[in-house]
Amino acid sequence: VKVYLNGAFVAAAEARIDASDRGLSLGDGLFETIAVAGGRVKRIPAHLARLKAGAQILDLRLPWLEAELAAALEGTAAVNRLSAGALRLTVTRGPGPRGLSPPAKCYPTLLIAPHSGAPPAGPVRAVIATETRRNERSPLARIKCLSSLDNLLARREAIKRGADDALLLNTQGRVAEATASNLFLVLEGELVTPPVADGALPGVVRAAIVAALGAREQSIAPEDLSRASQAFLTNALGVRVLGAIDGRPLGEGKPGPAFAKAAAVWAR
Amino acid sequence: VKVYLNGAFVAAAEARIDASDRGLSLGDGLFETIAVAGGRVKRIPAHLARLKAGAQILDLRLPWLEAELAAALEGTAAVNRLSAGALRLTVTRGPGPRGLSPPAKCYPTLLIAPHSGAPPAGPVRAVIATETRRNERSPLARIKCLSSLDNLLARREAIKRGADDALLLNTQGRVAEATASNLFLVLEGELVTPPVADGALPGVVRAAIVAALGAREQSIAPEDLSRASQAFLTNALGVRVLGAIDGRPLGEGKPGPAFAKAAAVWAR
Repeated sequence: VKVYLNGAFVAAAEARIDASDRGLSLGDGLFETIAVAGGRVKRIPAHLARLKAGAQILDLRLPWLEAELAAALEGTAAVNRLSAGALRLTVTRGPGPRGLSPPAKCYPTLLIAPHSGAPPAGPVRAVIATETRRNERSPLARIKCLSSLDNLLARREAIKRGADDALLLNTQGRVAEATASNLFLVLEGELVTPPVADGALPGVVRAAIVAALGAREQSIAPEDLSRASQAFLTNALGVRVLGAIDGRPLGEGKPGPAFAKAAAVWAR
Repeated sequence: VKVYLNGAFVAAAEARIDASDRGLSLGDGLFETIAVAGGRVKRIPAHLARLKAGAQILDLRLPWLEAELAAALEGTAAVNRLSAGALRLTVTRGPGPRGLSPPAKCYPTLLIAPHSGAPPAGPVRAVIATETRRNERSPLARIKCLSSLDNLLARREAIKRGADDALLLNTQGRVAEATASNLFLVLEGELVTPPVADGALPGVVRAAIVAALGAREQSIAPEDLSRASQAFLTNALGVRVLGAIDGRPLGEGKPGPAFAKAAAVWAR
């Protein structure tokens, strides 16, 4: 396995980062998880557009042309003969001295790692996370940044409670998203998804489904979940039925027509 | 300059971390900033106790004895002949595969880096951060974790607005702390500090001052700030007068008796 690191392909087992990298010391960076299917790296422009938007929010000047990043992604898939799986692209602000303030001149780190194998499929049993909340009052809720510990805490709570994943509530008690995917519900026959203002990450596949199926952004209260006739979770790697929440089956519990349409959008 | 990395001293310029380290990919780790003064590493037991408490919240099993960590800290100061400055101790969950879930067996990373020179002194001009909020609903508000981007955003806002630092409000609008220090105020003759439940990091020096001077934990509204006769910020590296907020001088604007007492507690 080879990863792309700052302009060169190196064996994954030998890939090393400067110990003063701000990605490590402060979570000061961004990432994208990008699907590879049929040997094709999917939705590169949408992923790079989100990366760029995140970099603007962090004032992180990316020194690479979009075409360079796209070539690095394609190259990582090709060098590893990756036909199905994912690429994780990580960008950090690069090395820096101690403290929050970045150095005057930054040399960002770029890492692209391949991951083969299909992502988990089948219905998700979720819980509503009780230990932590998603902070919709922070700009970080709208970008895919390295500071991911809240999602990690929620995922861990789910596993401890015998589930697969957790839904995160925001600080006002509205449902924001799952730990690594967006939520869609069919409520009274209409496809809805939590708004970005409520703490939903602006997912690349979420946007594609909203555009293709005309889903509406609507705040979701935890009580709304039991009224849904269908529910599913989406991220770059696929679409999964949300089968149960806090141990209670949700909706019809099996893939419905909205799920099938969303899965078809993902597969494009 | 030499850093301590996983059991050995290595030249800082050559210190490297595995590119799959979860500290880098997910901010999955903890840190401590520890003062060195007069050649002495200060408050080691308190820092290691907080590290341990944070590790428990993250389910991060630390494979080192407290005495080993203390020796590594003392050793890093000694090897670098550090008489005044700081040590930054960073612990991560170590390398792992893609995704939030940690591997079955983790090999945590331990890095201790020395930083010489006195920390900034003199009065702090602060603003109240408007771009982000501290999430007091997350357990992360109570630990010193690597996912530090909200504090970084607030600090950047302060610099852009011509100030030195920012005070963060929590999601309910109460004052939680500054970007890398705790807040103390003298209100109606009484020394008060925001409670941990409001999102104040349980600072090591904060705890020492609360214990020594009998400061009271009390929720602080932004309006309360203008009523303070004295205000100061504390962290492991020292105590500084808070001289102005949003451009308005605060209190008497010069070191008062409470500040002097707090500075003496720090100097112990």
